[in-house]
Amino acid sequence: MVQGGLIERLAPSLSAGGLLIGAEIGPRYYTDVAGRVGTLPQAVFRPRSTAEVSRILANCHAEGVPVVIQGGMTGLVCGALPRVNEIVISLERMNRIEAIDAKSATAIVEAGVALQTVQERVETLGLTFPLDLGARGSATIGGNIATNAGGNRVIRYGMMRELVLGLEVVLADGTVIESLRKYFKNNTGFDVKQYFIGSEGTLGVITRAVLRLFPLPAQRAVACCSLSSFANVIGLLDLMRHRLGGELTAFEVMWHSYFGRATALAHVKPVLPADRAFYVIVEVCGVDADSSHDRFESLLAQAHEAALIDNAVIAKSEAEAASIWRIRDASAEVHAAIRPAISLDVSLAIDRMEEFAARADQVAQAVDQASCIVVFGHLGDGNLHVSVHHPEDRPEIGRELEERIYDLVAAYGGSISAEHGIGISKRPYLGHSRTKAEIALMRAIKKAVDPKGILNPGRIFEIDA
Amino acid sequence: MVQGGLIERLAPSLSAGGLLIGAEIGPRYYTDVAGRVGTLPQAVFRPRSTAEVSRILANCHAEGVPVVIQGGMTGLVCGALPRVNEIVISLERMNRIEAIDAKSATAIVEAGVALQTVQERVETLGLTFPLDLGARGSATIGGNIATNAGGNRVIRYGMMRELVLGLEVVLADGTVIESLRKYFKNNTGFDVKQYFIGSEGTLGVITRAVLRLFPLPAQRAVACCSLSSFANVIGLLDLMRHRLGGELTAFEVMWHSYFGRATALAHVKPVLPADRAFYVIVEVCGVDADSSHDRFESLLAQAHEAALIDNAVIAKSEAEAASIWRIRDASAEVHAAIRPAISLDVSLAIDRMEEFAARADQVAQAVDQASCIVVFGHLGDGNLHVSVHHPEDRPEIGRELEERIYDLVAAYGGSISAEHGIGISKRPYLGHSRTKAEIALMRAIKKAVDPKGILNPGRIFEIDA
Repeated sequence: MVQGGLIERLAPSLSAGGLLIGAEIGPRYYTDVAGRVGTLPQAVFRPRSTAEVSRILANCHAEGVPVVIQGGMTGLVCGALPRVNEIVISLERMNRIEAIDAKSATAIVEAGVALQTVQERVETLGLTFPLDLGARGSATIGGNIATNAGGNRVIRYGMMRELVLGLEVVLADGTVIESLRKYFKNNTGFDVKQYFIGSEGTLGVITRAVLRLFPLPAQRAVACCSLSSFANVIGLLDLMRHRLGGELTAFEVMWHSYFGRATALAHVKPVLPADRAFYVIVEVCGVDADSSHDRFESLLAQAHEAALIDNAVIAKSEAEAASIWRIRDASAEVHAAIRPAISLDVSLAIDRMEEFAARADQVAQAVDQASCIVVFGHLGDGNLHVSVHHPEDRPEIGRELEERIYDLVAAYGGSISAEHGIGISKRPYLGHSRTKAEIALMRAIKKAVDPKGILNPGRIFEIDA
Repeated sequence: MVQGGLIERLAPSLSAGGLLIGAEIGPRYYTDVAGRVGTLPQAVFRPRSTAEVSRILANCHAEGVPVVIQGGMTGLVCGALPRVNEIVISLERMNRIEAIDAKSATAIVEAGVALQTVQERVETLGLTFPLDLGARGSATIGGNIATNAGGNRVIRYGMMRELVLGLEVVLADGTVIESLRKYFKNNTGFDVKQYFIGSEGTLGVITRAVLRLFPLPAQRAVACCSLSSFANVIGLLDLMRHRLGGELTAFEVMWHSYFGRATALAHVKPVLPADRAFYVIVEVCGVDADSSHDRFESLLAQAHEAALIDNAVIAKSEAEAASIWRIRDASAEVHAAIRPAISLDVSLAIDRMEEFAARADQVAQAVDQASCIVVFGHLGDGNLHVSVHHPEDRPEIGRELEERIYDLVAAYGGSISAEHGIGISKRPYLGHSRTKAEIALMRAIKKAVDPKGILNPGRIFEIDA
């Protein structure tokens, strides 16, 4: 129970609808996109302004009340699910696009706005906000920033960290850090916004942001290729990187284990026969409609002549491009179809990926002989997603698989979380990818910025008593 | 005087040449590239390894001895000049390129290696490290990281922050943070390397780094254009951005005040008549030699037809490209020719730059009627460099000019340091670009990471007693 009448005291100072208690609290505040359920919270604060966020936090800080911060609930590591005694701050009502400045190619938005809303609005002005991921309709900009979201176009535009020019953040004690600058270059002391990007809500509540926009590409070309070896996959990436430079916007790889299952789904069109070891989706966003398309076509012909690719299909329309992307976007369905299964998101050196995937398969079979693995990912970024099916439906099997495969990731010098973050789910494995000294430094920063540890406590690491 | 025999105690444990004292300490350890002179230090440590850096710092920390960290001494804000009682740690002997990995497009280097050495070495492998600035021959990678260096190609590749994948840093107490990862995506807790990038040596000593490399562009095209209005300059940038996308690598603007003076220098060729209000250098790095050049030429023809540009010259050879870049690279000589003068490095919204430059001229003339200003900069990044000549050679005139023009920058919501940093020189003006809450957060971070305040003390801000 929250002590000291904090809720009662705050209630009158909030705008209408700013507080939910008891039966008003629907499942959206304790359930995430994967259907996992947290604790029913005692109260949900739904601030409408930065001032309200500040007031709520100042009070929670004074009384040591722990807080969990919520955006679109699309995180995959249980970071936003309430835990015992936590009250919820949901940014859902701070969802305005405050301004779009075409001249400086920036947008100022509130944290609770959905990614897709921003994407669509700026497109009407001939601009693009290039972050893109499957959960675009629900995921919020604040959540994207707090988790340093990645997605499909990182190879060209970087992760969320590269796409944020300014931030407004409320610290645990209610202090507002207003750093909403529109310019890219600002070497005036520490770049404080970097502290909050990717910190999973443990250092402050992001309330507003200045986003970088880019010119909307004139033309998009998408192709799907089949390849016989992983060496060819690397060769194709190399060719595309060298010959397309800044026009290459996606290079997504799918092992046969993924492509076969995805193209067997009812709503997915098998654009190529599922008879090869590897498949790649290449996307090029050109600025010059005619010449870009021609160059892309001749580049694929060249890759075919060099025996890098066995077969390729180039989309001749937006509908065909969407068909190709549907294969890649079916990852949630592919994962669901092989349940019970665990899902991993790892970074690795590209030239060790093939060996890693084979070893992971062996490791999985050692745990459960009937297991199988499905592999795909953002090859251009060194990021693989791995789903491991274990027929025997016991959670301890899943945990053992996780442990063994993360051990393997560590042995290959990889990262156990490329884009999903640590949250609660991956906390036991943080030490696989970070040294003791790094984690001690994280704790020191946490202690300096949130000394009472009220913000998303226990996410990333446990706070020392 | 350093207390407690620290120097004597450390000396035997260092490799040969690792310690300079007394007359061994040459002027390079207390003089910077602009000829400014600091205090003669009592000792200069020249470690050869991270372990040596760690040992030196652990001892300095134990005894509270302040340390100043030195790279190539090319900083412009007096950050590396020794102050009273500081001993020097120079990274000059940690200057190896440890490995270049073409497959993952990364290089692992020691902090003391010169930028140009890295640039040249990776080019032999068909790769490019795209950071570039005038001081490339002396500036070190460690200094580039500590100051988050910018330069000429930020519009395409970002600042140094975007070009670092991993860091090794020694904290004030000697703790080594080894975070030398080769992959771009790693959402495993706080991204601790971000703390050190741009922190001007106040949080740790950078000893090694993993740098991101890119494919060496097949072809470079450079043009110089003259324009009659600033609206046309913005129009040209907009056209180039939309039509060149990721191939646009530089867009440098020069007011007539700069172009006239630069092209009057003996070693600079006036590639266009100095009869227009604005000049722009556009650089395009294409991946497809033939089509890139043709598209660039037709784009400039289109800009001419649309009356955006009055005149243009496209380099027909590398020598002609170098001639054009020489105009822009002459900024140090132009500044020297108008001494006494102050030099500013500001970020501003692009659409307010023209007005700002005109107002800055008025402000300068109000201080000294015979003053004049010279303006140029990285327009694509929102970054202007402004030199202000004041005929009367008294330092207080320079200070007054600085103060008034920084007031103007603050009034325009700009940054008083786009790339040069704060160091000692700009410390009085930090509050012009950062809020009190931001500076308080910086201090809290400094205190958490360097509790005794021994690293580059007094740079960026004074430490509270």
